[in-house]
Amino acid sequence: MYLNGDIIDSDSAKISVFDRGFLFGDGIYEVMVQINGKFFYGQEHLERLSNCLQKIEIKFDINKLPQEIDRLLGATNLKNKDCLVYIQVTRGVAPRTHSFPENCIPSLFMYAVPFELPDINRKCLSVITLQDYRWHRCDIKSIALASNVMANDKAIKQNAYESIFIRDGKITEASHCNIFFVKNNILYTHPANSHILNGITRSIVIALTKTLGLELIQEAIDEKDMYNMDEAFLTGTTTQIASIKKINDHLYYQNNEIGSITKQLQNAFLALKQ
Amino acid sequence: MYLNGDIIDSDSAKISVFDRGFLFGDGIYEVMVQINGKFFYGQEHLERLSNCLQKIEIKFDINKLPQEIDRLLGATNLKNKDCLVYIQVTRGVAPRTHSFPENCIPSLFMYAVPFELPDINRKCLSVITLQDYRWHRCDIKSIALASNVMANDKAIKQNAYESIFIRDGKITEASHCNIFFVKNNILYTHPANSHILNGITRSIVIALTKTLGLELIQEAIDEKDMYNMDEAFLTGTTTQIASIKKINDHLYYQNNEIGSITKQLQNAFLALKQ
Repeated sequence: MYLNGDIIDSDSAKISVFDRGFLFGDGIYEVMVQINGKFFYGQEHLERLSNCLQKIEIKFDINKLPQEIDRLLGATNLKNKDCLVYIQVTRGVAPRTHSFPENCIPSLFMYAVPFELPDINRKCLSVITLQDYRWHRCDIKSIALASNVMANDKAIKQNAYESIFIRDGKITEASHCNIFFVKNNILYTHPANSHILNGITRSIVIALTKTLGLELIQEAIDEKDMYNMDEAFLTGTTTQIASIKKINDHLYYQNNEIGSITKQLQNAFLALKQ
Repeated sequence: MYLNGDIIDSDSAKISVFDRGFLFGDGIYEVMVQINGKFFYGQEHLERLSNCLQKIEIKFDINKLPQEIDRLLGATNLKNKDCLVYIQVTRGVAPRTHSFPENCIPSLFMYAVPFELPDINRKCLSVITLQDYRWHRCDIKSIALASNVMANDKAIKQNAYESIFIRDGKITEASHCNIFFVKNNILYTHPANSHILNGITRSIVIALTKTLGLELIQEAIDEKDMYNMDEAFLTGTTTQIASIKKINDHLYYQNNEIGSITKQLQNAFLALKQ
């Protein structure tokens, strides 16, 4: 673990109860994976962290992060090894008031664990739908995740991988993934506004559609149309590109097939990781 | 401070970085005040804590709380003294996954500080309005307060006390208070559904309207009507009943007057505290 400059073991990794991360969920996080000795789209993850911190007005210089991550990887014997790094920046320790305290020093917590992504997520996933009761700033990768954990837990308890949110009749995203649909060889995904997190893997998939000459429309799918789609898949840093075989009781595929566009994107994604 | 059974000073009050309160904002809190040696509507606060914990499926026995609070007050020399107690229960420590871990032991953190409420909040407050971008489960007193702290900070930076939220054209509540309006001697406040927290002081005010023979309608006020109201006030555990003199640039009162219904309720509230 890494906590505010110190490398420590998990038992001694403790934070003040007055850290605003603990009292208010007042912080931002990132998860990234190292593959073949290099962080996969690491720069994009760090830039998103920086952007989100600016959105909630936490002043934190991300330029020092690469060297601190390097120290963490050195101490955990994970340099050049496949691993996952979790990064969390909170506003810091201060007496409890809702408004932001002056001169608060942000807290930086990180951990690294060995983690091997499968070449691609070949599993065919089941998902359920839920009304999107989250806040309206889903573009901010906030640690205030009460709604996301409730939604994801609901899915897990129904033996599903994820909960897909529906806001005002439109499908937005899942509790920790983005979602894409395919109909008549055209891809659809929710536009990157304040109702979804602009996922790094989502952006990679959008770039890949261009490389592959596939048509993509950044438009949300209506709830009433979701069962009429040809294919559906989730994207995320650890989910990668994962085919959805079932939404609620609707089966897209009888067996564990994967749609042809999903498969094309999975193969193209796989090539990026070499 | 009190942390998981131990009485400790604030410097040593530290929690694991893997506490889900810190990683996910996965917990519930309460704030209550002791006046004249007795918690003001203490039972109601503890019951709300218990209800909210049930809503997010944290199993925690609140029956042990009164005796633990007593220990905390004894250790901090605050028995029978006017003070504020903050209580926070989180889901506990577990490896990071969105869904709820099995067999997680909830963490209990509390602190007590000397705190003297003025007899009533005689200040006349300014507030601003903001679109309500919070989640849709505001009935849960969650520690995932990112949206509330952003909203309250915005108010403070504009020299206002609070931000009043507007959802779908209707006034809901403020970042840590409820709001009431008066028009033609009738009181209005948003119904206690999932778009507001059902405040203890809000409930006290509703009960007082009955005692005083005042008419109250639990109906949200339209944004377009808010400047046509005769009176407006905020309620909250530490705010008590506080007159609003100004919303955005609209002045209800030229001077620091307080409307007659607001004043009646403040006096009746004051009597409850004797």
